[in-house]
This record gives sequence, structure tokens and C-alpha cells, in this order.
Amino acid sequence: MPDRRDTVTLLSDLGSTDELVGVVRSVLRDLAPHATTVDLTHDIAPHDVRGASLALARAIQYVAPGVVLALVDPGVGTERKAVAVEVAGGNGVVIGPDNGVLAPAVAMAGGAERAVALTNEAWHLPSPGVTFAARDVFAPCAAALCNGADLLELGDEVDAALLMPGVVPVSRIDGDELVCEVLWVDRFGNAQLNVGPDEIEPFGDTLRLRISSATRTAQRASTYGAIRGGSGIGLVVDSYGLVSVCIDRRSAADELGLAAGDEVRLSEASDDAGRVGSVPVSIDVPRRG
Amino acid sequence: MPDRRDTVTLLSDLGSTDELVGVVRSVLRDLAPHATTVDLTHDIAPHDVRGASLALARAIQYVAPGVVLALVDPGVGTERKAVAVEVAGGNGVVIGPDNGVLAPAVAMAGGAERAVALTNEAWHLPSPGVTFAARDVFAPCAAALCNGADLLELGDEVDAALLMPGVVPVSRIDGDELVCEVLWVDRFGNAQLNVGPDEIEPFGDTLRLRISSATRTAQRASTYGAIRGGSGIGLVVDSYGLVSVCIDRRSAADELGLAAGDEVRLSEASDDAGRVGSVPVSIDVPRRG
Amino acid sequence: MPDRRDTVTLLSDLGSTDELVGVVRSVLRDLAPHATTVDLTHDIAPHDVRGASLALARAIQYVAPGVVLALVDPGVGTERKAVAVEVAGGNGVVIGPDNGVLAPAVAMAGGAERAVALTNEAWHLPSPGVTFAARDVFAPCAAALCNGADLLELGDEVDAALLMPGVVPVSRIDGDELVCEVLWVDRFGNAQLNVGPDEIEPFGDTLRLRISSATRTAQRASTYGAIRGGSGIGLVVDSYGLVSVCIDRRSAADELGLAAGDEVRLSEASDDAGRVGSVPVSIDVPRRG
Repeated sequence: MPDRRDTVTLLSDLGSTDELVGVVRSVLRDLAPHATTVDLTHDIAPHDVRGASLALARAIQYVAPGVVLALVDPGVGTERKAVAVEVAGGNGVVIGPDNGVLAPAVAMAGGAERAVALTNEAWHLPSPGVTFAARDVFAPCAAALCNGADLLELGDEVDAALLMPGVVPVSRIDGDELVCEVLWVDRFGNAQLNVGPDEIEPFGDTLRLRISSATRTAQRASTYGAIRGGSGIGLVVDSYGLVSVCIDRRSAADELGLAAGDEVRLSEASDDAGRVGSVPVSIDVPRRG
Repeated sequence: MPDRRDTVTLLSDLGSTDELVGVVRSVLRDLAPHATTVDLTHDIAPHDVRGASLALARAIQYVAPGVVLALVDPGVGTERKAVAVEVAGGNGVVIGPDNGVLAPAVAMAGGAERAVALTNEAWHLPSPGVTFAARDVFAPCAAALCNGADLLELGDEVDAALLMPGVVPVSRIDGDELVCEVLWVDRFGNAQLNVGPDEIEPFGDTLRLRISSATRTAQRASTYGAIRGGSGIGLVVDSYGLVSVCIDRRSAADELGLAAGDEVRLSEASDDAGRVGSVPVSIDVPRRG
Repeated sequence: MPDRRDTVTLLSDLGSTDELVGVVRSVLRDLAPHATTVDLTHDIAPHDVRGASLALARAIQYVAPGVVLALVDPGVGTERKAVAVEVAGGNGVVIGPDNGVLAPAVAMAGGAERAVALTNEAWHLPSPGVTFAARDVFAPCAAALCNGADLLELGDEVDAALLMPGVVPVSRIDGDELVCEVLWVDRFGNAQLNVGPDEIEPFGDTLRLRISSATRTAQRASTYGAIRGGSGIGLVVDSYGLVSVCIDRRSAADELGLAAGDEVRLSEASDDAGRVGSVPVSIDVPRRG
């Protein structure tokens, strides 16, 4: 376990339209000037614990050793615990509210080792209100760890087995269909599904793709540029090893009306697959927020 | 006073859609490689001097010692002065245009000590145009301070008492109402008012809230999660010690049509407060840009 | 040539809405912890190679010595080469896909010296898919250079003369008009043209400006604040030495319906220029994406 930690990696829903994240960065800079902050993203949708937990899980294997702050905290100031969780033999400490946002990343990093609630107020900043724990509780505790504090100095130890679990949806079989869920729509409109390539192997290279209001054919492809076929919809193994619904240089999510959490059903294309792809199909694109 | 300063904190309206801020960061990195830049925010609305001055004032007490650059400069290239102002016994220097953007933060930091106009062109970058003083004047002067230059080397001393004041609106009493102004709508839609909890103490726990086109009741609450009552509107003491209009996990600003600068009138709820809250109220939400 | 490089400057279309850029930053932090990353911008429009190449060309003269990563890569995973190009006597290495995004910046920096294709997979991160070369190829190769690797260790040398050229549009004369193109609309709505002040010198201080659906007069002005005249449209020499179409404290691009790539025709204002400016002109503003 390191005496001093020198990287604080940040993920939040604090946005960039005002100075909220900047103040968190300033507190870290002021209290632990030797540490470098690395921003994963601050544009998680407000209060989107699930989206944040999945983004952190995707990133965690690439994060530098040190402290991770996951600041998506709709229950700030209420009874939800603020916690710090040690992982990877102490090489990493993941800090945030105990609302599930940490769980998938902690699991990806090998599981929780020691965990504490951040109850020792000696480390906290004094504040007139309780609404900005990112600034007043989480950031100064991260700085304390960077300065060499032991995890157990931050507060009461808690049973890691009792931390709030994350909710990662699992695919399932329904008749001849594999029922998937969109985990994430990336900036380019690729829709990542919760299935790996092995699971769609039995369906061959041309699949039927059913969403709420349309049926399309899709082709397996090794790259975006290799997507071929009538519909132009590809199933590409993405950089996390999961199957993504893609259209080359366009947004599959926009064209198919897909958002995170939506259901997608995959199956073997029937013999009339060509026809399905070539007749006009009315796609009733759901409105997105 | 430090010989070398090692933190430059940035706030601007330069946005992130193009490389403007990145070039400012590059100039700092190139000229003062030992210094770390900390971004407060760059998404201040274009030319919004008031919004920037309030954001900087909220942040200033958390900013690490060093140089602060406040780059919201609608009059760039005209007769407005570019200035650097020393505060806090020389622990901080705040740099920007003399258009009021610096004033509230300087006041929060204890007031201006020495001040100069950035007239010494030896520190400036040569430029074919005058439209990017952030890059050509402000950033290199900040780097010079980081490298140990004294404030007075940057240009002619100016009387700190003659710097452009900021405009921070003050609440007032009108009949039985406290007339407030929305200072800031944060990313979550909480609308910060220019009043502290003491000022609304006399009105009790249930208040009447009047905005341009609606009257609502609001409850005082200690956290977002504790907001109760018919209307679901809470008055929460925020992390700066000011009263904010909030709705738990939703945007109060969107639902009430509130934007920075809007008037909000608070008073004691009359006996028919319950009725006001429970009958349908037509809220004519103003269109926002 | 430096043994170790300590700055990695980043430009991409990866956006900030998810953790894509954050993972690139994390890889750099993990593999080359002594290096500092400087973000130019990550909000290049998805797949906009031309816009990215122009942004990088504008920035390059201000970028600190070290490595530059230009990550706009619509053909990721296909046959397009990933390359690293040495410039400025080895003070800089520009890395990215060989699709033209690097070319204008390389030219601004004095031209390509040595160049390699990033074919040595020993430096790459293992990955289940080929869609995130920024993380798996470009960032680890940048880290290798920061750690002292020689350019030629990264892969096979390629002939710099065969790198994909950039496309920078050139102005031309058509009758009495100078036919220009909008290179860039900045955050404030100023529309930079591909002409310098010398080229419009012959037209005097009041010019006729023709766009797809309107004719306006425009005045040369030294600053935004100095824009005068009936139409309020100014031609200002911007901070890169190019002529920009501007309106003081408003967006010229919005008001005139200008976007990057649009044609603008400039000529001497005829004697009835005053009339043109003072009668109502119907501007059919094109819809923008």
C-alpha cells in the first residue's frame, strides 16, 4: 500500500456549465498539491447513478493507481452513507456515496477489501449547508488519503458485503430471441448491448434485430467501416468486448431511436431477411429527453 | 509573498467547442511549465460578466494560492483596462479585464491590495489582431508571475479604489414581502437567491413564493430529500449559506421558469396557503434562450 | 531531441458526455505519470476531420514542446494508417490517423521530418475490439515517446511525402468579387474567412458581402467594439491574422446563417451601398445541423 497517493480520478454529474467541478478540483489542489487530477467525465446525466456506475466500470481497468471519486449523489445530505472502499491490494481507493455508483467498478477491480464510512468530520470542510458533499466531504477525504492518511482514519469501518450493490442488467433467452438491453449510447451513437460476441455466435452473420417499433436486419462486422448489407446496421464487437449496434459514420441510436435502458431483441434472420431489409419499415422513433 | 507561484486557476466564457481555452492552457504550459492549471469552468454564457463574477466569488475561498485568470471580456481590444490585482497578502493575484468580473471575488478575498494595468508589452505575445487578449496578454502575464515577476513589472500601478465595481444585487422589503433575485441556477436547476436563512426566519417554515406569473407555497428543508409538502418546492440553505429554491431530484428552475436575474418574492404563507398549493396554478413559463 | 517528453496535447472528437477522453487521459497518466496532458478541445464535431485539422493548425504554434495527439478517426480499425510524425527538429511529434487531420499543423510546424506507421504492436494495449485506437494504440504510443522511446521504435518508417494531405481552401477572384470560404465559426459566432487583410485592402473600408441568400454591407473595424455603420457587420482582423465576419457582442454566424464551409463573396461597395444597407433585406437563413 502506498504511503502517498498522487492521482485522483474524477467522475461526476456536476456538469461543466458552472464552477462546481472546478471547486472540487481547487479543494484537491489546495489540500494535496502533489496530486494530479484526471477527469473521466462530469457530464453524466444529473442523478443518473446507473449510467455513472457503468461508465466507471468501463474505465476502471485503465485508471491510474490512486483515489477515484465518483460523485453522483442524488441523496446528498440524507441518510445514505458516504464511503471509501479499498480495492486491488490497496492500490486503489474508490470514494463516493453508497448508492450503487461504486459497485460495478469495485467488482471489476476484484472486489471490496476494507471499507469505511466517512464519519470522521475532522477531515471535512466546514460548510453552511449539506448539499455539496463533493466539496466538503469527498474531496477533502481524497486529499487526506493522498497525504498519507490510512483508510481507517477517515471513519468507521463498514462491512464491505453490506455496501449497496449495483444493478447490471443480464441478457436472457425468450423463445428464439436473445433479449438484450442498451447499456450505453456513446457520443457517436453506437449502442452498446449487454451481450458478448459468444452469445450471438449461434445466430450467424446476419441477424434479426427487433426494437420497440421496428424489425431490421443487422450484419456482424469487424469495424464500423466494414458494415455492409441492405440496412447498413452493423453489430460490432466494441472496445470493451461487448456487441454494439452501429451504423458507419452515422448515429445508430438516432436512426433507430435507441437510448440507454432500451430493450433490443436479437435472433437468427429468417429466410425472408432480405425482404425485411428492403421494404419500407416505419420506425416510430421514441422521443428522448 | 511567494517567489514562484505554481497554480493558475481559470474561469472564462471561451467554451469548449473550439480550441480557445486549449490555446490559453498551452501558452501557460509553454511559458510556465512548473505551474498547474485548474479549470473552474469555461462555460460561462458568452459575455456574461455578472454570471462570471458571481461564479468566481462563490469559488474564490476554495481556490489554491497562486494566480486566477477571469477571462470574460466582451470589450476586448477597446479602452477597457487589463488588470492584475493582488489579494490576501500577495498569496493570490486575480487577473482579467477591468469590467467588474473581478470585483466580487476580490472583495471576498479581503479586498484589493496592489493593482496594475497590464501595460508592459514586453510580457505580451505578438499578435496580428487584438481579439484574443486571453492568449496574448492575460496568459503570458500569469506565466510571468508564476516565474517570479513582481506585480509592478507587469505595468503601471493603478489605484485599486478606482477598479470597476461588481454589481451584486441586494434584497429589499416591499410591504410584507422580501424581494429577492435569482443569483444563479446550478446544473441541477436549484435557484440560488440573494438572501441568507436569517432573512427568511421571520416567515416561519411555510412561505409564500411569488414569481412573475405564479404564486406557490414553499417549505423550508434541510436537504433536497427532506422537501415535503403539497407543492414539492423547498427552500434549502445551500453550500454557500444562501437560500435556494429547490425540488427534490428535479429542476426547480425548469418547473418554475426561473433564470438568473429573475425576481422572487417571499412572504409568510397566509392561512389559505394549503389551498394555494392544492389548486391548479397556471404557470406561464417564460421561454429561455 | 529530448530524451523524455513531458507534455501531451490532446485534440479529439471524443466529446465530454462519456468517459472516452477520460480513459485516454488515464492511460497516459498510468503509463507516463511524469507527463502532463493539455486539452485543446474534445468537442470537434464527430468525424469532422477538416474542422479538427484547422483547429490544430490554429493552435500548433502555441503548443508546448512534446507530443500532440489528434484523435479524429472516422475510419478507425480500417486500412487507414496510424502515424507519428516528427516536426521542428524533434521538439514535437504529432500522432494520429493518416487521414489529413495532421497535415495543416505539420505544415505550420515546418513540415514533416521522420514519420512512422504505428505498426509495432508491442506498444499497444490488448483489446477485444478495434474501435478505440485512441486508447489502445495512440495513447500508449504517446506514452512510449514520453518515456524516451525513439520514433523508429514505434513502427515502420514511412515516406513523409506520402502522408495524406490536408485540404485548406484557397480564395479566388470571380469578376469583381473575392470568393472566400468560412473556415471556422468560433464560440462567439465570429466567422473566420480564408483571406488576410491584404486581400481585401483594395476594396476600401466599406465592402459588399454576398452570401447565399443576402447581400449586406460590412465595415472594416479594428475591434469588435469599433464596428459601426448601418448593418452592424464588421470585418475584423482576428487573432490569427485572418479576416472575420463579426457583429459586436452578438453572433454574426447566427444572424447571417453562416457555417464552416459556406461561401462568402466580398467586393467594393457600390455607390448605392447605403441603400443596400438601409432597405429591408430578406435573409433566408439556412438550417444548420
